[in-house]
Amino acid sequence: MADDKRGSIQVISAHSGDFVWRAGGALALYAEGGYDVRIVCLSYGERGESQGLWKQDGMTVKKAKAGRRAEAVAAAEALGADITFLDLGDYPLRIDATAVDRIVAEMRAAQPQVLLTHVASDPYNRDHNAAHEATLLARQVAQAAGHDPGTTPIGAPQVLQFEPHQPEQCGFVPNLLLDITPVFERKRKAMECMGAQSHLMRYYTDLALRRGVQAVRNGGRRSIVQAEAYQRVFPVVGQELL
Amino acid sequence: MADDKRGSIQVISAHSGDFVWRAGGALALYAEGGYDVRIVCLSYGERGESQGLWKQDGMTVKKAKAGRRAEAVAAAEALGADITFLDLGDYPLRIDATAVDRIVAEMRAAQPQVLLTHVASDPYNRDHNAAHEATLLARQVAQAAGHDPGTTPIGAPQVLQFEPHQPEQCGFVPNLLLDITPVFERKRKAMECMGAQSHLMRYYTDLALRRGVQAVRNGGRRSIVQAEAYQRVFPVVGQELL
Amino acid sequence: MADDKRGSIQVISAHSGDFVWRAGGALALYAEGGYDVRIVCLSYGERGESQGLWKQDGMTVKKAKAGRRAEAVAAAEALGADITFLDLGDYPLRIDATAVDRIVAEMRAAQPQVLLTHVASDPYNRDHNAAHEATLLARQVAQAAGHDPGTTPIGAPQVLQFEPHQPEQCGFVPNLLLDITPVFERKRKAMECMGAQSHLMRYYTDLALRRGVQAVRNGGRRSIVQAEAYQRVFPVVGQELL
Amino acid sequence: MADDKRGSIQVISAHSGDFVWRAGGALALYAEGGYDVRIVCLSYGERGESQGLWKQDGMTVKKAKAGRRAEAVAAAEALGADITFLDLGDYPLRIDATAVDRIVAEMRAAQPQVLLTHVASDPYNRDHNAAHEATLLARQVAQAAGHDPGTTPIGAPQVLQFEPHQPEQCGFVPNLLLDITPVFERKRKAMECMGAQSHLMRYYTDLALRRGVQAVRNGGRRSIVQAEAYQRVFPVVGQELL
Amino acid sequence: MADDKRGSIQVISAHSGDFVWRAGGALALYAEGGYDVRIVCLSYGERGESQGLWKQDGMTVKKAKAGRRAEAVAAAEALGADITFLDLGDYPLRIDATAVDRIVAEMRAAQPQVLLTHVASDPYNRDHNAAHEATLLARQVAQAAGHDPGTTPIGAPQVLQFEPHQPEQCGFVPNLLLDITPVFERKRKAMECMGAQSHLMRYYTDLALRRGVQAVRNGGRRSIVQAEAYQRVFPVVGQELL
Amino acid sequence: MADDKRGSIQVISAHSGDFVWRAGGALALYAEGGYDVRIVCLSYGERGESQGLWKQDGMTVKKAKAGRRAEAVAAAEALGADITFLDLGDYPLRIDATAVDRIVAEMRAAQPQVLLTHVASDPYNRDHNAAHEATLLARQVAQAAGHDPGTTPIGAPQVLQFEPHQPEQCGFVPNLLLDITPVFERKRKAMECMGAQSHLMRYYTDLALRRGVQAVRNGGRRSIVQAEAYQRVFPVVGQELL
Repeated sequence: MADDKRGSIQVISAHSGDFVWRAGGALALYAEGGYDVRIVCLSYGERGESQGLWKQDGMTVKKAKAGRRAEAVAAAEALGADITFLDLGDYPLRIDATAVDRIVAEMRAAQPQVLLTHVASDPYNRDHNAAHEATLLARQVAQAAGHDPGTTPIGAPQVLQFEPHQPEQCGFVPNLLLDITPVFERKRKAMECMGAQSHLMRYYTDLALRRGVQAVRNGGRRSIVQAEAYQRVFPVVGQELL
Repeated sequence: MADDKRGSIQVISAHSGDFVWRAGGALALYAEGGYDVRIVCLSYGERGESQGLWKQDGMTVKKAKAGRRAEAVAAAEALGADITFLDLGDYPLRIDATAVDRIVAEMRAAQPQVLLTHVASDPYNRDHNAAHEATLLARQVAQAAGHDPGTTPIGAPQVLQFEPHQPEQCGFVPNLLLDITPVFERKRKAMECMGAQSHLMRYYTDLALRRGVQAVRNGGRRSIVQAEAYQRVFPVVGQELL
Repeated sequence: MADDKRGSIQVISAHSGDFVWRAGGALALYAEGGYDVRIVCLSYGERGESQGLWKQDGMTVKKAKAGRRAEAVAAAEALGADITFLDLGDYPLRIDATAVDRIVAEMRAAQPQVLLTHVASDPYNRDHNAAHEATLLARQVAQAAGHDPGTTPIGAPQVLQFEPHQPEQCGFVPNLLLDITPVFERKRKAMECMGAQSHLMRYYTDLALRRGVQAVRNGGRRSIVQAEAYQRVFPVVGQELL
Repeated sequence: MADDKRGSIQVISAHSGDFVWRAGGALALYAEGGYDVRIVCLSYGERGESQGLWKQDGMTVKKAKAGRRAEAVAAAEALGADITFLDLGDYPLRIDATAVDRIVAEMRAAQPQVLLTHVASDPYNRDHNAAHEATLLARQVAQAAGHDPGTTPIGAPQVLQFEPHQPEQCGFVPNLLLDITPVFERKRKAMECMGAQSHLMRYYTDLALRRGVQAVRNGGRRSIVQAEAYQRVFPVVGQELL
Repeated sequence: MADDKRGSIQVISAHSGDFVWRAGGALALYAEGGYDVRIVCLSYGERGESQGLWKQDGMTVKKAKAGRRAEAVAAAEALGADITFLDLGDYPLRIDATAVDRIVAEMRAAQPQVLLTHVASDPYNRDHNAAHEATLLARQVAQAAGHDPGTTPIGAPQVLQFEPHQPEQCGFVPNLLLDITPVFERKRKAMECMGAQSHLMRYYTDLALRRGVQAVRNGGRRSIVQAEAYQRVFPVVGQELL
Repeated sequence: MADDKRGSIQVISAHSGDFVWRAGGALALYAEGGYDVRIVCLSYGERGESQGLWKQDGMTVKKAKAGRRAEAVAAAEALGADITFLDLGDYPLRIDATAVDRIVAEMRAAQPQVLLTHVASDPYNRDHNAAHEATLLARQVAQAAGHDPGTTPIGAPQVLQFEPHQPEQCGFVPNLLLDITPVFERKRKAMECMGAQSHLMRYYTDLALRRGVQAVRNGGRRSIVQAEAYQRVFPVVGQELL
């Protein structure tokens, strides 16, 4: 991570929009907090997550990628994050040995304390499963002393799964409600960059309010308005019960 | 809670020994940290958790209770905690409407931010189930504006389940590894008070080391030697991903 | 059920508001469809679900009950349903042998094809668990030839669990998204009757839209705007795969 | 247990027919093997499990009990087992503190190595849940040194759940397929005693064959024709991997 | 689908026999009901599901495939369904990117409202897992606007898992019991075509009766004799609670 | 298996150390009992499980493999087992079609009654998942009459999962506690061979004691000191309830 940063968080996003809708608040919060925030987009979501684009005449995969890329770059900037595209293809997203090595290299470069990614099993979208699996696998490889000895192994970053579109169908049980009230305007700006999926804007704005209500119900401060839900993969270690 | 305290934590313990073995580190940590730490023992464990005592000639329930009480008082003192005994009987522990009201009164008096208790389903010991259920039920009642209007409803305290003796058989999946290294000597002193169950001393000393190793493996500081494992019931609310 | 009806559905509601927020659409849909729709309120929710009322000076349990009853009667009327109050008390709701017999009598009178109730395990509200358990138990007793031989046993009605406030924390996985678009205005009118919980109005209006979006995503007609989520307890029997 | 026996197994049966259909093979096998085999019937199933009887004119609870008792006594004899009736009532079966004490006394008298009972959660029949819970609770109490000190505590018997009528709906996952081929004729004779539920005869005969096929598929001897399925609650302890 | 059909259902079958034993009733029911019914056999089951054939002298993979194909074609005809063979090999069944594209093409050609396939995890037969995964993946790709733009994306068909041989070991929990009484003779005829697995004939005939008994127990019409069990992957959308 | 042996057990170990720490007791027990005991090491764990080696100057993958191999050979000898190395690479372990065929060939050569391997899902180490999956897949292929007809298909060996490092995080629920007291010295000698992971020595010595205590608690003989925990994948078949 950059030397002047307090720490590092990294998102492994199946398609180029996922990090905005599902984790934009977390990214903005940590960017404002002085962290190095990095996004790895495994694909552009060019075939399956750009339904709007494909209604345009003369659309091609190349054009769809370019459009998605431009949106994602703008959204990342709005959030204060760096972004990298691995262009592995979508629907399906296939992550071979070379691709895992590239993700490992990104992790070693970032040295993250926290990794964010998709849930383990989404019946609607197996690209999400692939991203989850690749994250756990690359994390393991990135820890190995004997892998690419010239670079530095990572520690044991927590992995958080962000909220899928239909959480109950994916076995998603939030164990963290992250207060994103202070940075919600930034998330809104990032969402506004996603022209190809603008119908999701209202949906995720409402969802943030709903998770905010739940955050207060679960003992959070009354000032919380918006929240994002996460499910941690590993136990938390610390000296606090709360 | 007492006015000069930073906050309040409260244990609902099925038998008078459970709080020592399973949560002694957490209690000592918070007592040292300036919290009001309160223990509610639902029973003394006089029939079922005092196998050593019942090998003595002339043992009676009354004597067993007195012995267990003395041990628990000493252990609570070693941990820096207050202790209350509801004397509801053990094996089985039965918690009727009156008993729930007494637990509610204890909660309203303590105004805890955190509640600690047993897992939901322990096939070896249904008293643990009863304590878990009573904790959730009393928490709900203690929140109700219309219950005993002269006293103050509580907020929405987190509930943490502490580690059962055979965790995998109880569906226990730790999501918090609490670093108790700084207070382990206090926990050891408390454990030494439990004469009737002294065979557990080595077991829980080793367990603390094992959970400590896991804490480091999960990203904790290398200085962690001992830890206690907990499973939170409710989502955490906050502004931190870690 | 009444002779001129096409069939019968029945809700077993822990508190007098639950049936409105969680199942109002289903009730209105079936009332409009010519069914006998009956609501059994096990309690008024007078202590725990009337936070607004208890901020009024001079509030008493008796007044709280009266206020809640009036609201629920109005809401039931708006939905086109009959309503019965068993007044078993709330926070906690306790359902003894006599109370089970009363629920059985209601079921035998209604002869329902469908029962609606709460989820099996809600960590926030054990009254919901009690209502779920009582529904399954009363259903079983109501089927028994040897129980109260002068009345008619029921068949094998499906049991549907309606959506709890924090679904993922309750193990709720919807397997039915009920299109309530045609009757949403009726549900809105019923919700407007619930003065003591008016803050929930927006919450459940948004939730209906969110479930409506999911209904379309799961293959429902594009005309669906609002939906309610349910989880069936028993397998469906029929000649249709969809 | 009787002095001349090799060991002891005990069934805790919710209704007086359950032990025949679900565990008759195991009981016959152990009776032939020189074990003390004891059946505790918590109720006669007089109201809910005697649909045939209640079609007879002039049926009463008293007559239904007598009929069910006679059948169960005959079936137990066919299996080579002792039988005791606690007559706690059915639909619902309610097990209060006194009833638990009676079950504890039966366990201490039998000193079983193995307990057989129902699954933890059967949505169709909550009497089964009650029997399961009572078994675990009584087992725990029967182990306690301080309970009824004049009698001898039991060890740590395994608890096996037998197959419910609709196994998948009850979370039943067999981890033991018991070969009952050598004693199937005895089980058939016992089943023939159950006049009030004769429609179940073919059902359980077929089920035994189906479980027998599965037993062979799971590595059992080719000579296996009939089997019963069980799910153990506790880990097995031994020196064999198979 | 064909223009004169009411709709379309499609089976993705790991081996060429699975569709007969596990879903033959559903296929016959829909064929009679005027649907386009299509079967995609991923492999012939030539190595692992033809134990009878391999006892013949001089058996080869080529001969085994031919024999299996002939049986499956006859069975499909008996059911009134079209059948396609992808010949991907069995034990193990491996589904690479090209194979997924072929399945996608079949789905787009069929435009199914319903997909039938295997469970997600069968410890006895990982080919079943592969078929399940391929179905979900191909369904997702077939929905994508950007995939093979000259063909028409599919909607959001329900996916039903049919019953595995040992349901409890595969996490199979039926939520649909399909009445196949009216078409059972057709299913029997189809089963009779499967010479290489004739030992399964009695097994599945009995299973259909057993599921039929359960269908009646779950509220189905008394006229139901045979049923097939299914577990839906996605929520049902509709205006009916039953 | 060798002709003079009573039977055969086989371990499929992801890395060359796993079989020692997790199953060394079982292997020693069966070797002493006259079984053919065979270990298949899928990789040496040269990159990810040799942190000690990689702190040495000039370490290379080749040297790491040689060191790990020597340790594993010594450990296998101490346990009385044969060992084979497939050298498939670690971090990640990738098992392609050729590798599956090699595992199948090992299984057919060994004709095991029991297979031991890793759990299905370890979030810390996906190589363990790969070994689990490969074991189930190879077992299925090794059973197929049509695979490599010149060799003999295996029967239906039980598969036991051994204990992962953090059992609760891996969904590990032991259903067998294997008494390894008589052979613990052998296991200790084998552990002493593992120089590259010597920090694990104390950890697994303590774990064996902890599992030993639990074995006694679950009804095992008082003489049990050390045990290993296992989770069986398939139901046990037999004539014993215990």
